[in-house]
Amino acid sequence: MAEGPANDAPYRLLDGVRFGAGVVVQSFTNLYGCEIGDHTRVGPFVEIQSGARIGASCKIQSHAFICEGVLIGDEVFVGHGVLFINDKHPHATTGEGELQTASDWELLETRVGDGASLGSGAVIMGGVTIGERALVGAGAVVTRDVGAGEVVAGVPARALPPR
Amino acid sequence: MAEGPANDAPYRLLDGVRFGAGVVVQSFTNLYGCEIGDHTRVGPFVEIQSGARIGASCKIQSHAFICEGVLIGDEVFVGHGVLFINDKHPHATTGEGELQTASDWELLETRVGDGASLGSGAVIMGGVTIGERALVGAGAVVTRDVGAGEVVAGVPARALPPR
Amino acid sequence: MAEGPANDAPYRLLDGVRFGAGVVVQSFTNLYGCEIGDHTRVGPFVEIQSGARIGASCKIQSHAFICEGVLIGDEVFVGHGVLFINDKHPHATTGEGELQTASDWELLETRVGDGASLGSGAVIMGGVTIGERALVGAGAVVTRDVGAGEVVAGVPARALPPR
Repeated sequence: MAEGPANDAPYRLLDGVRFGAGVVVQSFTNLYGCEIGDHTRVGPFVEIQSGARIGASCKIQSHAFICEGVLIGDEVFVGHGVLFINDKHPHATTGEGELQTASDWELLETRVGDGASLGSGAVIMGGVTIGERALVGAGAVVTRDVGAGEVVAGVPARALPPR
Repeated sequence: MAEGPANDAPYRLLDGVRFGAGVVVQSFTNLYGCEIGDHTRVGPFVEIQSGARIGASCKIQSHAFICEGVLIGDEVFVGHGVLFINDKHPHATTGEGELQTASDWELLETRVGDGASLGSGAVIMGGVTIGERALVGAGAVVTRDVGAGEVVAGVPARALPPR
Repeated sequence: MAEGPANDAPYRLLDGVRFGAGVVVQSFTNLYGCEIGDHTRVGPFVEIQSGARIGASCKIQSHAFICEGVLIGDEVFVGHGVLFINDKHPHATTGEGELQTASDWELLETRVGDGASLGSGAVIMGGVTIGERALVGAGAVVTRDVGAGEVVAGVPARALPPR
C-alpha cells in the first residue's frame, strides 16, 4: 500500500485510509478507515466511511456516499450522488430515546462486483449484491440483488432486457 | 443554548446558529441562522438555512439540505442526501427577468414529527407534514402529508402497509 | 467578463472560470474551465466542469453537479442536488481494463432553454434538450427531450398537463 494519494488537492480529510498505488482523491472529501485500491479515482464531495473497501481502477464520482459494510470490486463506476445504505430500519435514537450507537443496529453488507456501473443518483439499499458488469440506471433505487450483467432501472429498480 | 458545537471539525461554516448542548457538527458544513437541539449530530456536506429548526437527538446525515421553513422534531433521522423544498414553483427570476428575492415567493412550511425517519435520497416537497414515527423510504418523493407511524415509498410516495 | 465572483466566500476552488458581472459563488464549490453568465448565483457543494456553459441570472442550488457538455440558458433554476450526465454507458475502465479517458467515450451534449426550472434531486440524462420555461419536477429522471413550457415529473419523467 502507498502512503497517500498520488495528488495533493486542498480541503481534504484523510484519516487512516489504506491507499493503493496511484490513487487520486479530489478536494472536499472525507475518507476515514477505508481501503482504496490501485489507481482508483475519488471525486469531490465524497464521503467513504470506516470499513468500506473499494477495489482497483474504480471511479467514485462527486457527491457519492459509501458507508461501512460496502465492498466494491475492481473497475466499478460509482456515479455522482450514488448513496449506499447499511441499515434496514434507520432511526436517530434507540427505543429509549438515546442516540443510536454501533451496537444498536445490524450492519448490512453490500457487495458490488467487478466492472459494474452504478448510474448517477442511484440509491443502493443495504444487504444487496450487485453482480459483475451489472448496470444500474441513473436514479434507480435498488432494493433486491442484481445479477451479473443485468441491467436495472426505476424505483424500485427492475430488470431491463440484457444489453 | 450552548455557544457552539461540542466538537471542533475543520472546514465548517457556522454563522448565527443557536446550538443546544452537546451538538456535533462534522466538516464541510454550512449552517446559518438555524436552531439545532441538544445532542443532535450533523454530518458532512450539509447545508441548513436560516430559519430552519431542528429538535434534540436528531441525526442529520451527509449531503442533506434543510431549507428555511423546515421544522423538525426530536429524535428524527434525516438520511444522506435528503432534500427539502420550500417553494411550489421555483424560478430563477421574477416575470420581469429580475433575480427572485424573498419577497417574490411564498414560503411553504414543512413539519417533521418526533421520531420520524427519512430514508436516504428522499425529496420532501414544500408544505407537507410528516407525522411522528413515520418512515419515508429511501429515494421517495413525498408530495402529500404522511400520517403518524405511516410508511411511504416510491415516486410519488405512497403508503405501504403499517409495520 | 469580470475577473472573479462578486463575493469572497471561503473554501472555494475556482480554476479558469469565465465569470460574468456580479456572479455570486458560495463556499465549498469546485468550478473549473466553465463559463458563468452575469448575476448567476452558485450555491455550496456544487461542481461545474470544464466546458459547461451557464447563462445569465440563473440559480444553481446546493449539491448540483453540472458536467462537461451541458449548455444552460438564461434565468434557469437548477435545484438542489440536480445531477447532469454526459455519457450513455458510463464505465470505470475501457474494455482492456485501463481507466477511461476523454477519448474513450462519446460526449453527449445537453441543453436547457431560457427560463426552465429543474426541481431538486432531478437527474438529467445526457443528450436531452429541455425547452424554454419547461418545468422538471423534483426527483424526476429525464430520459427524453422536454418541450418548451412542458411540465414533466416521475421516473422516468412523463408529461403532466400544461400549467
